[in-house]
Amino acid sequence: MIIVLRPDCKPEQQLAFAEKLKNDYDVKVNTWNGVHSTVLGLIGDTTQIDIEYLDAQDIVESVKRVGEPYKKANRKFHPENTVIEVAGRKIGDGSLHIMAGPCSVESEEQIVGIAESVAKSGATFLRGGAFKPRTSPYAFQGLKAEGLDLMKIARKETGLPIVTEIMRTSHIDMFESVDIIQVGARNMQNFELLKELGKIDKPILLKRGLSATIEEWLMSAEYIMAGGNNKVILCERGIRTYENFTRNTLDVSAIPIIKKLSHLPVIVDPSHASGKSWLVEPLAMAAVAAGADGLIIEVHNDPPHALSDGAQSLTPQQFDSVAKKIFKLKKAL
Amino acid sequence: MIIVLRPDCKPEQQLAFAEKLKNDYDVKVNTWNGVHSTVLGLIGDTTQIDIEYLDAQDIVESVKRVGEPYKKANRKFHPENTVIEVAGRKIGDGSLHIMAGPCSVESEEQIVGIAESVAKSGATFLRGGAFKPRTSPYAFQGLKAEGLDLMKIARKETGLPIVTEIMRTSHIDMFESVDIIQVGARNMQNFELLKELGKIDKPILLKRGLSATIEEWLMSAEYIMAGGNNKVILCERGIRTYENFTRNTLDVSAIPIIKKLSHLPVIVDPSHASGKSWLVEPLAMAAVAAGADGLIIEVHNDPPHALSDGAQSLTPQQFDSVAKKIFKLKKAL
Amino acid sequence: MIIVLRPDCKPEQQLAFAEKLKNDYDVKVNTWNGVHSTVLGLIGDTTQIDIEYLDAQDIVESVKRVGEPYKKANRKFHPENTVIEVAGRKIGDGSLHIMAGPCSVESEEQIVGIAESVAKSGATFLRGGAFKPRTSPYAFQGLKAEGLDLMKIARKETGLPIVTEIMRTSHIDMFESVDIIQVGARNMQNFELLKELGKIDKPILLKRGLSATIEEWLMSAEYIMAGGNNKVILCERGIRTYENFTRNTLDVSAIPIIKKLSHLPVIVDPSHASGKSWLVEPLAMAAVAAGADGLIIEVHNDPPHALSDGAQSLTPQQFDSVAKKIFKLKKAL
Amino acid sequence: MIIVLRPDCKPEQQLAFAEKLKNDYDVKVNTWNGVHSTVLGLIGDTTQIDIEYLDAQDIVESVKRVGEPYKKANRKFHPENTVIEVAGRKIGDGSLHIMAGPCSVESEEQIVGIAESVAKSGATFLRGGAFKPRTSPYAFQGLKAEGLDLMKIARKETGLPIVTEIMRTSHIDMFESVDIIQVGARNMQNFELLKELGKIDKPILLKRGLSATIEEWLMSAEYIMAGGNNKVILCERGIRTYENFTRNTLDVSAIPIIKKLSHLPVIVDPSHASGKSWLVEPLAMAAVAAGADGLIIEVHNDPPHALSDGAQSLTPQQFDSVAKKIFKLKKAL
Repeated sequence: MIIVLRPDCKPEQQLAFAEKLKNDYDVKVNTWNGVHSTVLGLIGDTTQIDIEYLDAQDIVESVKRVGEPYKKANRKFHPENTVIEVAGRKIGDGSLHIMAGPCSVESEEQIVGIAESVAKSGATFLRGGAFKPRTSPYAFQGLKAEGLDLMKIARKETGLPIVTEIMRTSHIDMFESVDIIQVGARNMQNFELLKELGKIDKPILLKRGLSATIEEWLMSAEYIMAGGNNKVILCERGIRTYENFTRNTLDVSAIPIIKKLSHLPVIVDPSHASGKSWLVEPLAMAAVAAGADGLIIEVHNDPPHALSDGAQSLTPQQFDSVAKKIFKLKKAL
Repeated sequence: MIIVLRPDCKPEQQLAFAEKLKNDYDVKVNTWNGVHSTVLGLIGDTTQIDIEYLDAQDIVESVKRVGEPYKKANRKFHPENTVIEVAGRKIGDGSLHIMAGPCSVESEEQIVGIAESVAKSGATFLRGGAFKPRTSPYAFQGLKAEGLDLMKIARKETGLPIVTEIMRTSHIDMFESVDIIQVGARNMQNFELLKELGKIDKPILLKRGLSATIEEWLMSAEYIMAGGNNKVILCERGIRTYENFTRNTLDVSAIPIIKKLSHLPVIVDPSHASGKSWLVEPLAMAAVAAGADGLIIEVHNDPPHALSDGAQSLTPQQFDSVAKKIFKLKKAL
Repeated sequence: MIIVLRPDCKPEQQLAFAEKLKNDYDVKVNTWNGVHSTVLGLIGDTTQIDIEYLDAQDIVESVKRVGEPYKKANRKFHPENTVIEVAGRKIGDGSLHIMAGPCSVESEEQIVGIAESVAKSGATFLRGGAFKPRTSPYAFQGLKAEGLDLMKIARKETGLPIVTEIMRTSHIDMFESVDIIQVGARNMQNFELLKELGKIDKPILLKRGLSATIEEWLMSAEYIMAGGNNKVILCERGIRTYENFTRNTLDVSAIPIIKKLSHLPVIVDPSHASGKSWLVEPLAMAAVAAGADGLIIEVHNDPPHALSDGAQSLTPQQFDSVAKKIFKLKKAL
Repeated sequence: MIIVLRPDCKPEQQLAFAEKLKNDYDVKVNTWNGVHSTVLGLIGDTTQIDIEYLDAQDIVESVKRVGEPYKKANRKFHPENTVIEVAGRKIGDGSLHIMAGPCSVESEEQIVGIAESVAKSGATFLRGGAFKPRTSPYAFQGLKAEGLDLMKIARKETGLPIVTEIMRTSHIDMFESVDIIQVGARNMQNFELLKELGKIDKPILLKRGLSATIEEWLMSAEYIMAGGNNKVILCERGIRTYENFTRNTLDVSAIPIIKKLSHLPVIVDPSHASGKSWLVEPLAMAAVAAGADGLIIEVHNDPPHALSDGAQSLTPQQFDSVAKKIFKLKKAL
């Protein structure tokens, strides 16, 4: 960590500050006296230091981190890939997993039908929403507990483990038998929820926030891991930019960057990233070519009648065609 | 609402779709046949229509709203300003309110001392954080329930009503005697929290999300109001942009825009918008000149030792000087 | 084109305005009277209508385009792919072209050496900068005319056609024998330059502006085409977002979107999109998987001593390895 | 300047690199050996060092500047405000200047009429466009040379010095008798134009690029100043963000930030920042309250018939009312 002091900082202030840093944190402090400014360098474990606290000091002009502020999610401290095993499937081991299913669970017939169909096409997980975060209070909010039950029926029928989104701390018990719990983009910094999810022993699919930096996203993973739950799967789902042709802009670079900075697996959601079904195939292909560990894709038996997100859903037939191309691509890589 | 149909849409499909829209929603449907595309126009109350559902139809190319998707927060349906009364203070009636206090409550001495001092300088509310949303799990998370108690002591000593942030639905009872409950930027789309806050009868200070559009922000207000609680105060606190000299970019235009689109009061947080104490004064001045109903400003007795956000806090002396200039400006307007 | 009139607009104003629109432009005007607003629909060729002019009318609340504002670049009016032939190579015909070479031309030995090496690895064009747009006036600005001459020598030695950037209208004559003239991101809306390039008969590689929307980018292509030069190759090179881990954020979605909206070929620059050499391979792979017609990649014999952009350049050995993977991927698709 | 070396960098490489830096640039180099990385600190004048060059070295992980990359525009090296005198008016001396006039010059009657009217309301400069940068090649491009002549007539009639935009290097001679030459947002990084403007002795109004950082904007000022022309006036005109209710987002924080980082005067364009005439007044007020040295405002005698930018133009009557409020506010500050 590098601390630039203000030009008018006096030598005795500088000395006292360096002394304080050494005592408060377990670090060594080096000092350089430049022409226009004095710079302190902190050596040691600085992940516990609050950069804002330092920034607030009268004599400080700016503070820059040299190392990353996350530790458990950091590849430097955990060089091997984390592999998360769910119902015999290994995420992060180099294989490719597709989680497919409808935005919202709507009925037993619907979810079982879709599950059977996507399983045939090669999906290894069933996704589906029971509790739905919607921008409008007047839009369909999901079947809730009933939706969870229907997903379990579909799991029983097809053997596909299930992935579904949690929206509230008090629901954690209800999600006990879910295979992977999803944290949506809008809750990526719902720290109270992250803390509670850190206390359980279940894989968490952590979506990137709408405008989260990669560092903030890894800090949210760190929240879960700091509580003791290391089973975090990251999910890139598009970020907010000035371009509004697509709902979000898929940040495909995030895939190799996460692979470099962290040991956690990373998957991609091309459906939410684009908001348009005709973009799902090319974005899925791009994600796999860039090294993603998996995809999460919206599939609906009847998109024009979907209760949510129909515009970005594939039909089972379209999904089958996309999946074929994806597996062919994966094989070629 | 305007629906552009795909060029290859057949006349009978178009007719059937128009018929369906008339039956499903209480709207009239007009049709134009253009050279390259056919356009349907929906007339009536379209706030209940899910735009994504329409967008998902096979025969639909694009959908555009003519009206706004929010109703209770919309000035069109509620032309007079909403005035929210708290302990005899009126927010939204043309007067200017300053909410001042520390980012985090740290001790009785600290909070009472700051409260006395900001009250003398003209602040009409005491702000302070008991539960703190922090990016790092290793940073100070607030004094929690004890912090709330200390704020109540400061209220008793000074008469200043208190504003503090809630982070969790299950805490609502604990916030019973708080005067204004704040929803932080990271929770602006924590819909479960918004729904619960819609059921109580207490003013809610709703901060704009880090990258929320004005429309999304008003939709979050609508969530609270849809539940029956109309006492929503909006708070602009800077948005995320590519510019990283400041922590966020104050969107000063949001003030007159909110005034035009909505009847709700809007205040500004120059401390979070900039992240730097030396920017608080010019941004506060700009906000007042642009028509804000109030300001929320971080003040700390000893910023270099603040447990959070010290870099953007003013000392009581600095706050006094800023407040003087602000009140002088307000008088001149 | 849809024009929403203000609620207080009187029937006679509305009539007069509709009449004026019919006379001024060759369009039909339909009128709907809604509950809260009146809407006019313009049918006909609206590409010549200035949307800002309409927006300025007293009685107009908002204007929305139904069609695109570009015509010559629009796939609707030109359904088949444009294929651009340069020295026997066809860009846009489904094949994949790699343009490779250094950011800056530095010496004959350097450029000829790199050209020979990338040609062996499969590159079909040589790229290189003679005139360099640099953020700092104190940074190396290129070898200028001498750089162009060195590129021609390299072309003679290897047979690779050359691609290089123009920065000034008065240089067009000097670029006479260049095979493809590049317009850089910072000049994408240098309309005076675009107009002049519209008058010549030479392929133009038009980079997307740092924060240009896809529509603005296509409008810049339209500028060139409006002058009579239809040989425009679009180049996605990353856009500016809030994320600053990478220099820019590659917008991989732009590839399929351009393919849908336009008939022009589109290539990708993974070197500028990321600014980091270790990201070039995964981004190049993603671009090809998403359907790009080509890639433009920075290659330098000695990146640590490159006079510009060394951080994102590959060595010839690295390029050879990347090119092998790319061609293998292309074959598999 | 701080250089973080890669963890695997060997001591002899580190030594050789430090030696090279000392020889190549006139700097001292300090070295710290941390637990996870080694850091070099460069002390001396680092404005001439190309940060990208350092970043490209094999053994370098990252480079961070401590000082700013601009020198002539930097307040550290030029503590007093630059005051630019034009026809007896002083910009940057604490007074407030309003530049007003139409987006496009359309006729003698129009420009003289507007000039007389805005002069009466207190404007001290006449703005007007002769050469117009337009997104569409089919939109009105300005009266060009004739427009310049009409502005000179209006200057003669009213005594108001004139401000107008240049778009092409070859036009510099034609702009000889213009009082302030404007560089538009889209040309902020047209470095060839900036270099030529650095060679003349005339005030340059440098608009901020659509998505330029404050640092890039000051680097563009540095381009002009590096050539010898120190008369640069900066103009904030809104930046591109994800929010699309307004055409751009006014970055009001830029005003105090420029005042801190630089000695150059800064004015604000509330017309382009918002794109809506009803937002001009509140944004102008905010800009003045935040410390701007002036405003540039679009005024048109007949906005609905303006050939460009009518939606954001005020009528002379509206301008008179806004100007009165602005001068009253300025007096109160």
